[in-house]
Amino acid sequence: MIDSVKKRSWKEHLHEIIYEADTKEGKFFDIVLLIAILASVMLVMLESIDSFDLKFHTSLNIGEWIITILFTIEYTLRVVSIKKPFKYIFSFYGVVDFLSTIPMYLSLIFIGSQGLVALRALRLLRVFRILKLARYIGASNKLLFALRSSSAKIAVFLFFVLIICIILGTIMYMIEGAENGFTNIPKSIYWAIVTLTTVGFGDIAPQTALGQLIASAIMILGYSIIAIPTGIVSAEMTKKDSDIDTNTQSCPACLKEKHIEKAVFCYHCGSTLN
Amino acid sequence: MIDSVKKRSWKEHLHEIIYEADTKEGKFFDIVLLIAILASVMLVMLESIDSFDLKFHTSLNIGEWIITILFTIEYTLRVVSIKKPFKYIFSFYGVVDFLSTIPMYLSLIFIGSQGLVALRALRLLRVFRILKLARYIGASNKLLFALRSSSAKIAVFLFFVLIICIILGTIMYMIEGAENGFTNIPKSIYWAIVTLTTVGFGDIAPQTALGQLIASAIMILGYSIIAIPTGIVSAEMTKKDSDIDTNTQSCPACLKEKHIEKAVFCYHCGSTLN
Amino acid sequence: MIDSVKKRSWKEHLHEIIYEADTKEGKFFDIVLLIAILASVMLVMLESIDSFDLKFHTSLNIGEWIITILFTIEYTLRVVSIKKPFKYIFSFYGVVDFLSTIPMYLSLIFIGSQGLVALRALRLLRVFRILKLARYIGASNKLLFALRSSSAKIAVFLFFVLIICIILGTIMYMIEGAENGFTNIPKSIYWAIVTLTTVGFGDIAPQTALGQLIASAIMILGYSIIAIPTGIVSAEMTKKDSDIDTNTQSCPACLKEKHIEKAVFCYHCGSTLN
Amino acid sequence: MIDSVKKRSWKEHLHEIIYEADTKEGKFFDIVLLIAILASVMLVMLESIDSFDLKFHTSLNIGEWIITILFTIEYTLRVVSIKKPFKYIFSFYGVVDFLSTIPMYLSLIFIGSQGLVALRALRLLRVFRILKLARYIGASNKLLFALRSSSAKIAVFLFFVLIICIILGTIMYMIEGAENGFTNIPKSIYWAIVTLTTVGFGDIAPQTALGQLIASAIMILGYSIIAIPTGIVSAEMTKKDSDIDTNTQSCPACLKEKHIEKAVFCYHCGSTLN
Repeated sequence: MIDSVKKRSWKEHLHEIIYEADTKEGKFFDIVLLIAILASVMLVMLESIDSFDLKFHTSLNIGEWIITILFTIEYTLRVVSIKKPFKYIFSFYGVVDFLSTIPMYLSLIFIGSQGLVALRALRLLRVFRILKLARYIGASNKLLFALRSSSAKIAVFLFFVLIICIILGTIMYMIEGAENGFTNIPKSIYWAIVTLTTVGFGDIAPQTALGQLIASAIMILGYSIIAIPTGIVSAEMTKKDSDIDTNTQSCPACLKEKHIEKAVFCYHCGSTLN
Repeated sequence: MIDSVKKRSWKEHLHEIIYEADTKEGKFFDIVLLIAILASVMLVMLESIDSFDLKFHTSLNIGEWIITILFTIEYTLRVVSIKKPFKYIFSFYGVVDFLSTIPMYLSLIFIGSQGLVALRALRLLRVFRILKLARYIGASNKLLFALRSSSAKIAVFLFFVLIICIILGTIMYMIEGAENGFTNIPKSIYWAIVTLTTVGFGDIAPQTALGQLIASAIMILGYSIIAIPTGIVSAEMTKKDSDIDTNTQSCPACLKEKHIEKAVFCYHCGSTLN
Repeated sequence: MIDSVKKRSWKEHLHEIIYEADTKEGKFFDIVLLIAILASVMLVMLESIDSFDLKFHTSLNIGEWIITILFTIEYTLRVVSIKKPFKYIFSFYGVVDFLSTIPMYLSLIFIGSQGLVALRALRLLRVFRILKLARYIGASNKLLFALRSSSAKIAVFLFFVLIICIILGTIMYMIEGAENGFTNIPKSIYWAIVTLTTVGFGDIAPQTALGQLIASAIMILGYSIIAIPTGIVSAEMTKKDSDIDTNTQSCPACLKEKHIEKAVFCYHCGSTLN
Repeated sequence: MIDSVKKRSWKEHLHEIIYEADTKEGKFFDIVLLIAILASVMLVMLESIDSFDLKFHTSLNIGEWIITILFTIEYTLRVVSIKKPFKYIFSFYGVVDFLSTIPMYLSLIFIGSQGLVALRALRLLRVFRILKLARYIGASNKLLFALRSSSAKIAVFLFFVLIICIILGTIMYMIEGAENGFTNIPKSIYWAIVTLTTVGFGDIAPQTALGQLIASAIMILGYSIIAIPTGIVSAEMTKKDSDIDTNTQSCPACLKEKHIEKAVFCYHCGSTLN
């Protein structure tokens, strides 16, 4: 891989730095990006604290613009270095990157649109992507593998939980009614979810004897059926782990990942992997 | 199976469409029914939101009548197409179907009985029935199998939880008394269930030192014994899955299901399966 | 066993009826006792509801006396039919039986002592004893076996949880202080238990930023370590079940139970088992 | 080992008593220390209860000084009996021991510094160390082993939970805003943690329909992903236990522990183990 690097154009070189993490520069870029994202989220948090914002408004604003410029450069490079820019622009991460960059520019035109900087928190999701590149993610891979292979069962379980919550929420609405806080069916369903998942905020609580009886049944149900997802994942985890080695490259043409170590062509679009 | 269809009467044909899902028409019927049920539940939800009901009262009312007429037709067809109608009428689903259909007619005679339309949420249970017919329910079957084979142990566990809650609730009533919100024993038992299941609404909370000590014990107990149902289901899940293939037919005479693929006679009443 | 019954005295016969469940009379006695206990608990519950007590005070009082007389007879028979009465009288169940019987007699002398009837709820524990006698408790036995063999690990876990709660409770007391509801260290420890076990009443909640940070850590800790008892029990459950057959006899001399089927002498005191 | 004891100096003898538990005196020292720690924590608790402190202020103060003097002696002996004192002084336990001893002396100079005695609760951590020496800790060792080998996976899981909470907390801040109790992003993240871990204090609860919808999603997510740490630990527990025997000695030179039974030299620094 190191040999072939020399012949490539700057675009291909940039692509490897930004989208992959096999080279030294790639790893360095990822670490810088990681720090920038964490700093940007920290900034948004501090701005949201009124007492802090009052004291350091100017410093925070300067910080915002530095982050915005950095993100703008990164976004431009990402668009430029890829073969099919629109594939990136309309991908989930592309949209998130765009939304994280635009609010400060918008705030120059529309006052108040600065509040949208909080959307930047979504960039934290990229942390998972970056970390995926690191080597110590064997643990994470096994976790994901176990989750993926049990996802069908968990989906059935969640679907079951939802239906139960709709039915029980509706029944509670009929029993308790608006005078006890169950003002409408969607709110009652919200309460049923709060109760079944054993969260129990207590902002809405049944007052009638019958309501409390059914609430008890919901709680015991919730307390018992938590055994189901747990049992599913436990069973999956005790199975043998799969041992397919994938690397951190992403195809320059179609962005697909999880290429088998030493792959030369993309398994999806057939482009040469560099 | 397809050959034998030709010779059957329209009743038998209708039975296959409504009660089974092996044929094209059967699947289509199920999907239409699924949509109708979901729409009817959506309608009930929207009606329960006061602000929404005020604006769109007439539209919602028209929607209600459309659903009611559809359900009436379905109910009639179900009764007509089965060999022993009373078996269906007095079955759980038969009663639910009836209760979902009747409220709008009742509202013509008794004002206010319209509130019963919420009972229609129970029809959501039929969703499980309909989905059972689909092919991708291998996951769901395995889940159910694991649950069924561990149901005896879970019943013992739930019984234990209930007894513990009654005892602890009574003790808390003696310690805290009516002045701290534990107004009577049933309410104290309700509180014990809220606490043991780790829901913790907070509408009732112990105030005395001794009460808080016992509450702590209940919480730690509840936190620990959740391991029991989880352990049961986990153990069951790690066992091998059973591999008996059943189809989606239901007997036209006795409604029994879970006939082995290719069965010709009902295992329960001996009627010919068509 | 049936042969040897004939030669025994009425005391031995009574012992078999009351303390065992192998004979027809023994089973009948157990069922009657079960109903009496459930009725007595029901009565206590109804009395605690003020509105109900006002209406039916006399009927409830009569019911109380009937239960008291029945329990008095049972208690006397238990004392009479056993070889070493003091062993029973000072056993846990002996004390509970006594406390369940005495309050009504006391209420004749000391007004107000009637409140102690609630202690009768403890008799519900005997339900487990009675049910143990039934045959269908294979499930329950396996559960108990798994719990017993993992009890050492669970004890270590609970001890760990308790120490953590004491430390964290003390720290929270120092951070939040009396002005935020953490009035003293025991109360702070109570709060830590409420939080770690994910119950979360919300009657006390941290107000300072540092307090909320530590609270977050406690919650995530509690959310994660619940995996430990669950893992322990799951591991125990997946092991093979033991298959030692014990019967329901209890030694007439020393009350020990769990004699191996067909045992002739008590494994503990050497008395003949009848 | 018993033979070599005779030739050692009093320092080495003291080291064995204080830092190890293989000899009779060592075990006795540990038990006395355990009682002293528990007594000191008890004392701090009682002082924190205002009503109690008012009544018994003098007795509590005398108790404090007795504990302080005992801890001072212990601390001095620990420093004296070890070959490299600074290694102990700046170790975690060394700092905790120092902080537990100093507050009463400080209170002579600075009024109010007495409040720091609560730091003494941290000494409870030493309880784990002392108990480790006892023989019945097979259970605890297995627990720790299972936890350690699954710590990488659990760390990934916790990291994932944290990122999710930051993102969801930020989104909830944008939706609900300060008027519904979500006054700033850190507080919203705190709320997200409270909700995801199913604690649910209820001091902050979403009021808007959209907020409640997202809250429902967070709750169901939290309710489902608890299966992950549970599955990890369950899988680890079902694996075979390791069987390496370590003893309770700690190296007099470098404090390292977990020497293999019958080791003569420290595996870390090569000093002779006595």
